[in-house]
Amino acid sequence: MEDVLYCVGVAAEAPSGANRQPWHFILVDDPERKAKIRETCEAQEKRYHETVEPSLRQWFKSKGIAWLKPFLTEAPILMAVLSDQKMPYATESTWLAIGYTILALEERSLSTLTYTPSYPENVRGVFGAPEQYRIEAILPIGYSADPKPKEQRRAFQSSIHKNVWNAKA
Amino acid sequence: MEDVLYCVGVAAEAPSGANRQPWHFILVDDPERKAKIRETCEAQEKRYHETVEPSLRQWFKSKGIAWLKPFLTEAPILMAVLSDQKMPYATESTWLAIGYTILALEERSLSTLTYTPSYPENVRGVFGAPEQYRIEAILPIGYSADPKPKEQRRAFQSSIHKNVWNAKA
Repeated sequence: MEDVLYCVGVAAEAPSGANRQPWHFILVDDPERKAKIRETCEAQEKRYHETVEPSLRQWFKSKGIAWLKPFLTEAPILMAVLSDQKMPYATESTWLAIGYTILALEERSLSTLTYTPSYPENVRGVFGAPEQYRIEAILPIGYSADPKPKEQRRAFQSSIHKNVWNAKA
Repeated sequence: MEDVLYCVGVAAEAPSGANRQPWHFILVDDPERKAKIRETCEAQEKRYHETVEPSLRQWFKSKGIAWLKPFLTEAPILMAVLSDQKMPYATESTWLAIGYTILALEERSLSTLTYTPSYPENVRGVFGAPEQYRIEAILPIGYSADPKPKEQRRAFQSSIHKNVWNAKA
C-alpha cells in the first residue's frame, strides 16, 4: 500500500485541464468490497459480451477474454480511478494521470492493467461515488504471477507523420 | 528530433483498448507549417474565448491565458497527437500515451505542455488528417526558457478514498 500511495503521488503531478486535477483514486484492499466490485462488474460484462461487435468478439476470443474478471478479487489492491466530469477535459486529464500511475507502478516493480468496466455508470454505485464522477478504470495492482509476455506493439515509426499526415519521418 | 523520436517510442509502449494503438503523431518542424497551424488554432481560440463560461474566464485571466498561442511557432518541434476514433477507447488510450510521452520528454530534459485546441474538428484540416482522426493535443517541444514555476497541485492525499468514496486513507 505504501508503494501504491507513492504512485498516486506521482499521478497527482500530472498536468490537467485548467489545472483542476479532476482525478480521484479509491484504493480497495478489503476482500469483501473487492468481491462486491467483482460481482457488480461481471454482471455488466455479461451484458456487454452478449452485444459486442464481431471483429472485437473475435479478438476477445483469441485472447481468452470473457466476462469473468478474476483479477478483481485476486489482486491485493484495486485502484478505481474516477474523473470529475464537471471539470474541463476531465477524462483526458485522468487518463494522462493513469499513464503516470502505470509508469510509477513499473518503477516499483508492481504490475497492473487498465480494466475499463462496461457500462461504468452501473458500476459507480458499488463505490458510493456521486453521479458527477465517472469510473474511468479499475487497476488491479500486485506482483504479477502472469507468465504471458507483454502484448506486441507495432513498430512505433508507423505512427509517425512528418509535418503533415501520411508523410513519412 | 532524435530525442522526440525516442519519446514517441516510449508512448507507443502504452497499453490501449484491445491493444489497437489508436495514436498517431505528426511531428512538425517546418516553420511555414507551424505558422499555418498557429494561425488556424488562434482563429478557433478567438471564437472560444468569446464564449467561455465565467469561472473559467476568471481563471484564464488570472493566468494570463488568451487566444494567442505563440508557443506554436516558437517551439522547435510541434507534436500533434491524434486518435483513431474508430478504435475502442481511442481518446482514453491516446491520453494515457500522452502521459508516457511527457515523462519521456522530462527524462530527456525537454519541456512541453498539453495544448488542447478549441474546436479540434476545425483544426484537423491543417494537418491533412482524415475525419476519423481526432486532434487530441498539440505538444510544443523544446528546452524551456519559461522562468515560471510549475503550477501547484493540491495535496495528493485529498484525492484518495479508502475502500469507498469519501472514506479517508
